[in-house]
Amino acid sequence: MSQPSIPKGTRDFSPAEMAKRNYIFDTVREVYELYGFRQIETPAMENLSTLTGKYGEEGDKLLFKILNSGDYLKDIAGEELLEKNSNRLAAKLSEKGLRYDLTVPFARYVVMHRNEITFPFRRYQIQPVWRADRPQKGRYREFFQCDADIVGSDSLINEVELIQIADEVFSRLGIRVGIKLNNRKILSGIAEIIGEPDKITDITVAMDKLDKIGTEKVNEELASKGISRKAIDQLQPLILLQGSNEEKLDTLKTTLKDSETGTKGIEELGFILDKLKIAGIRSELELDLTLARGLNYYTGAIIEVKALDVQIGSITGGGRYDNLTGIFGMAGVSGVGISFGADRIFDVLNQLDLYPENSSRNTRVLFVNFGEKEEAYILPVIAGMRRANISTEIYPEPAKMKKQMAYADFNKIPYVAIVGENEMNGNKITLKNMATGEQNLLSFNDCVSTITSMSD
Amino acid sequence: MSQPSIPKGTRDFSPAEMAKRNYIFDTVREVYELYGFRQIETPAMENLSTLTGKYGEEGDKLLFKILNSGDYLKDIAGEELLEKNSNRLAAKLSEKGLRYDLTVPFARYVVMHRNEITFPFRRYQIQPVWRADRPQKGRYREFFQCDADIVGSDSLINEVELIQIADEVFSRLGIRVGIKLNNRKILSGIAEIIGEPDKITDITVAMDKLDKIGTEKVNEELASKGISRKAIDQLQPLILLQGSNEEKLDTLKTTLKDSETGTKGIEELGFILDKLKIAGIRSELELDLTLARGLNYYTGAIIEVKALDVQIGSITGGGRYDNLTGIFGMAGVSGVGISFGADRIFDVLNQLDLYPENSSRNTRVLFVNFGEKEEAYILPVIAGMRRANISTEIYPEPAKMKKQMAYADFNKIPYVAIVGENEMNGNKITLKNMATGEQNLLSFNDCVSTITSMSD
Repeated sequence: MSQPSIPKGTRDFSPAEMAKRNYIFDTVREVYELYGFRQIETPAMENLSTLTGKYGEEGDKLLFKILNSGDYLKDIAGEELLEKNSNRLAAKLSEKGLRYDLTVPFARYVVMHRNEITFPFRRYQIQPVWRADRPQKGRYREFFQCDADIVGSDSLINEVELIQIADEVFSRLGIRVGIKLNNRKILSGIAEIIGEPDKITDITVAMDKLDKIGTEKVNEELASKGISRKAIDQLQPLILLQGSNEEKLDTLKTTLKDSETGTKGIEELGFILDKLKIAGIRSELELDLTLARGLNYYTGAIIEVKALDVQIGSITGGGRYDNLTGIFGMAGVSGVGISFGADRIFDVLNQLDLYPENSSRNTRVLFVNFGEKEEAYILPVIAGMRRANISTEIYPEPAKMKKQMAYADFNKIPYVAIVGENEMNGNKITLKNMATGEQNLLSFNDCVSTITSMSD
Repeated sequence: MSQPSIPKGTRDFSPAEMAKRNYIFDTVREVYELYGFRQIETPAMENLSTLTGKYGEEGDKLLFKILNSGDYLKDIAGEELLEKNSNRLAAKLSEKGLRYDLTVPFARYVVMHRNEITFPFRRYQIQPVWRADRPQKGRYREFFQCDADIVGSDSLINEVELIQIADEVFSRLGIRVGIKLNNRKILSGIAEIIGEPDKITDITVAMDKLDKIGTEKVNEELASKGISRKAIDQLQPLILLQGSNEEKLDTLKTTLKDSETGTKGIEELGFILDKLKIAGIRSELELDLTLARGLNYYTGAIIEVKALDVQIGSITGGGRYDNLTGIFGMAGVSGVGISFGADRIFDVLNQLDLYPENSSRNTRVLFVNFGEKEEAYILPVIAGMRRANISTEIYPEPAKMKKQMAYADFNKIPYVAIVGENEMNGNKITLKNMATGEQNLLSFNDCVSTITSMSD
């Protein structure tokens, strides 16, 4: 039989990897809950009618579709089969697909459960999603998203809190980050005043290259995209925008004074920056006009978090979107959300070696097994250890001492307890510290306190 | 647009349901870790070559298959399509399927990672599985399994520990349970001495009806299954088996004395019962010869847990299986495992009303929003609350007081903090206890200690 394998783009997670992943998920979860977000879960499978058409044509192709059960070919006409139109036939072969993100299922959840929830609704969700993307380094076909959203509230306090959450999560993880902010309304304002409403993407892409290629080349690129000389001139203060966030906002106020939408965006950004200053925040905040992620999606604030000490893309992003549930026929529900990229955060923590040394969930003490007599003696001792909330193992066989020690070593168990003839007679335990090699003959209670004091 | 829906047999979990589910999962996880089990996760999708043929013909039909991506029809001959053999064509349309249980993926994991793990390997895994079963009350197409297994050790201490784990989990959950034990070797021994090796299932099924239909009818049923008069006579002491576990073992020893396998099974069961007595266990243990779950699968101990105060099937089960990894070409790895049925435990806790009143993960205090001035004042106060690890929300809009209170009520937030003109001037917070209606004007520190003392 050939070696078994797993589908490309998917992964197994070993105990060591799970400890690291749980450290990230637990941190995000704890902060979400500290801010009053409530967890929901949705099924891995959604009806394809829920998913299709929500992620663009490219996204539709990346949906994993579930083959219908039973005699799924029965009602398909022979000629249709012979056409071999894989795309069209998929709709007949498959009714369900795997979740592509957490946002569309959440919108579907809100619409389906509208009578059971009260707005504003603060929900978080940490679940895997699946995309039939071409697998490559750092891109997987199954990966976790960690989303928090508030729906049914227009208040900018929500944006403020989501940014505080990002700040708190990375502070707890020990990752230095910069948080970039922008506002879709400001970008719309820019397009409005230069009279090029369709060119926002071209403009932000070109402006983003300033540091690399200089003003001259940026202007050339803008011209090459069909933007008029006059518009490019108007854009100059924004291309060269520098200084503190306050200074940038002042420049924007002047430049965009004739755009109502742009002025609204500046006010919103000003409010958010102001309230973050009052609430207190550790990370650096930067108004970045070139930040345009998910442009067709966001309608207000745009948020992106980057690690300062590792070269990697954005590790968290989010923003304000209007009409989340409109796709399912429920209008007027505004939302704002944030999403942590667990896989990239995993890589950052690895690169910076920031994982805590000891996972508190790991076994703390292994009892050596010398045979049936000692086994019978130590079983109640082990039960006592566990009652003291110490994660304890007994080696299941009376194997050679060397093998049992190697097991403790391999599994990074910090203490080994040895109970042989002497210890049984004296009602004691020999406790070996695996890091230092130190051995002590201790009472049960001293054993417990030694192990406990080390774990905390 | 029509109302969105989810696939039949799948579920959304609301925040209230998630709190209950997490309570179960956290309890199981904590006990698994207390016993030194290490978590792994495997991908939702496995290659169909890994899954197919492992669950019998019926199981193969219940696998959810993933439609291949891209132009999946291209290489299928027209005539093959026209045959419309849904079963055979599935193998060409689909290479991947959704995980059906956690055992086969675990076996695949052990074989693939044999060089990275050290035996005995104690792993636990809490993940959803999918089965295209006909949905019905209490049976879902997506549900969670919570498995712990030890592989690479023949020691019966593993069985002892798994039973201790079941005892501990249900003790923590407050569910009174009875734990039934049997051993496949005893059943084989019975079949051996009466010379009917193929009739074990018929025998256990008939014996199981003793309480309902009486000895006479049980014997009639045995005869109707083609079991000889002589064999039925030999079975009488086992059909009428009563008394303590020790008494039952004594009867078995006599009845099965001529079967080597049966005698081995009695020894194993005796060892397990003996060691459990030494280690200490709260639940009632019952040797039950009619327990034969997964007969073709288990080779030694068979374990089943039933709730004593609710009429429901088994809520946990497990046992010893040999050669887990043999299906993937790695021989000689014995294993023993246990699996908690989260959905049934959920129902039992609901029926007995055993969920803890307050989920500690819920928001503890809501700050009322009176408008921009008060908002600016309370933002640092709220940051302080969160630094004190109190889950805190601010109502995002200055809505009517009644609406904000209703929000706290709906979300079961135990305290509401009110900071208006008076409080700002006096540097105080009015804290309202939502259960009692009591209101007190408190300093920040007194606020923190009131809320904290209530949560613990």
